[in-house]
Amino acid sequence: MAEVIDIDDPSDSRVDDFRDLASADRRPDLPGRKGLVIAEGVVVVQRMLDSRFRPSALMGVARRYEQLAEDLAEVDVPFYRATAEVMAEVVGFHLNRGVLAVARRPAELTLDEVTEGARTVAVLEGVNDHENLGSMFRNAAGLGAEAILFGDRCADPLYRRAVRVSMGHVLRVPFASVPDWPNGLELLRRKGFQIIALTPNPAAPNLAAAMTGKRVALLLGAEGPGLTEEAMRATDVRARIPMSPGTDSLNVATAAAMAFYERVRTS
Amino acid sequence: MAEVIDIDDPSDSRVDDFRDLASADRRPDLPGRKGLVIAEGVVVVQRMLDSRFRPSALMGVARRYEQLAEDLAEVDVPFYRATAEVMAEVVGFHLNRGVLAVARRPAELTLDEVTEGARTVAVLEGVNDHENLGSMFRNAAGLGAEAILFGDRCADPLYRRAVRVSMGHVLRVPFASVPDWPNGLELLRRKGFQIIALTPNPAAPNLAAAMTGKRVALLLGAEGPGLTEEAMRATDVRARIPMSPGTDSLNVATAAAMAFYERVRTS
Repeated sequence: MAEVIDIDDPSDSRVDDFRDLASADRRPDLPGRKGLVIAEGVVVVQRMLDSRFRPSALMGVARRYEQLAEDLAEVDVPFYRATAEVMAEVVGFHLNRGVLAVARRPAELTLDEVTEGARTVAVLEGVNDHENLGSMFRNAAGLGAEAILFGDRCADPLYRRAVRVSMGHVLRVPFASVPDWPNGLELLRRKGFQIIALTPNPAAPNLAAAMTGKRVALLLGAEGPGLTEEAMRATDVRARIPMSPGTDSLNVATAAAMAFYERVRTS
Repeated sequence: MAEVIDIDDPSDSRVDDFRDLASADRRPDLPGRKGLVIAEGVVVVQRMLDSRFRPSALMGVARRYEQLAEDLAEVDVPFYRATAEVMAEVVGFHLNRGVLAVARRPAELTLDEVTEGARTVAVLEGVNDHENLGSMFRNAAGLGAEAILFGDRCADPLYRRAVRVSMGHVLRVPFASVPDWPNGLELLRRKGFQIIALTPNPAAPNLAAAMTGKRVALLLGAEGPGLTEEAMRATDVRARIPMSPGTDSLNVATAAAMAFYERVRTS
């Protein structure tokens, strides 16, 4: 049972983990700082409670505590209860969602762990936008992709904004880094994954035709630059999303959703 | 040829259409105010120049003028050239993209106009989030859906944020309102459109099986509430995006992209 502790003084040091979340240089959720993972809102907090990220504390208004009481029945951490005004002073802005949970980062999962039993995984290179990352995890959860793998130069999926945009699915869909990028893709090949680079190149075969493997790893690059040549060379096949001429490539999370959908459709 | 006019004084009244874009109560791009349509950045400005939205003026830094000079060769409107600092004072914030164009709203298109020759259109109800609207137009452009139709309670697609998120495609993909919602869907039926409601309901047939019409109108509601019963009743068939149990429904623009993709795939 979470212990409810009322906080009246915004300077109370017990809520320091929730302090000034928007302030860039003190932001506790940045890597190299406290490295905390922040869940915002009832749904995302529930997803955190149901994940490998164990919250060390929660902070919220009374109404949100009531909504979460059942979920917190077995959880032995403090719930710092405050008014919306006190919370705003601590957090540094008015928080519509009214409740936060904070967790230390657990040890990172390995490529072996996250790919075990997986049929469909996405592998990202240079995806350094937190919203795109968050959407990617949400789409993976919604369309049954089992893991996200990170090559070079991706943003931190546990950043607060990514967690929020993902609706908390970054806490649930497992992710890991591919070592020695892009040579490490060989590890996926040895596990039987067909490695497919998604490209807007109209000369490439269509996605639907190209995805022939029982296990598929979909390689996606950032909008604009796309995948590096080194990464492309380490793949088995290139495939394109059918797309209208003269438009920009789709958002990377949407392109991934197309590919996840194609996997669901044909399974 | 656009006439270049240097602006040194941020209070110069000639740039009033670009003033205080972020200030809610003076925001010129809100309906009922000046109703201006704002394009931000080189790519979006180019799309505006190539659309039915005729800019009345541009404002930007020297480097952006140079990038656009060719596009502006035939355009007879002023380009207000300023430093990034002067622009920031006028606009009210620092504008990374460095160039803006502003257009009056032309007359709205009619349902007849936007559906002429269209195979695939989206019809939205209650989609009141500007980012989702912008993404919807971007996905329509990228995946070849020819028009967006608005039922009840949708946000303004010409709002600055929607234009930006769409990468300017709200200026290119035609849109119109469905009169007398939801009865007006009958107008689409008479044109031979199969009207399909997208739903997360697992009991509904799969999208791929349900889309049998030569012309298809895909009806989408907001995340959360979804479509109203009245709208559902006015459709021919309900179809679902295959989705993992226990997750939220997909973002409405992503769900639309799946359906657009399915149309492209089978055409």
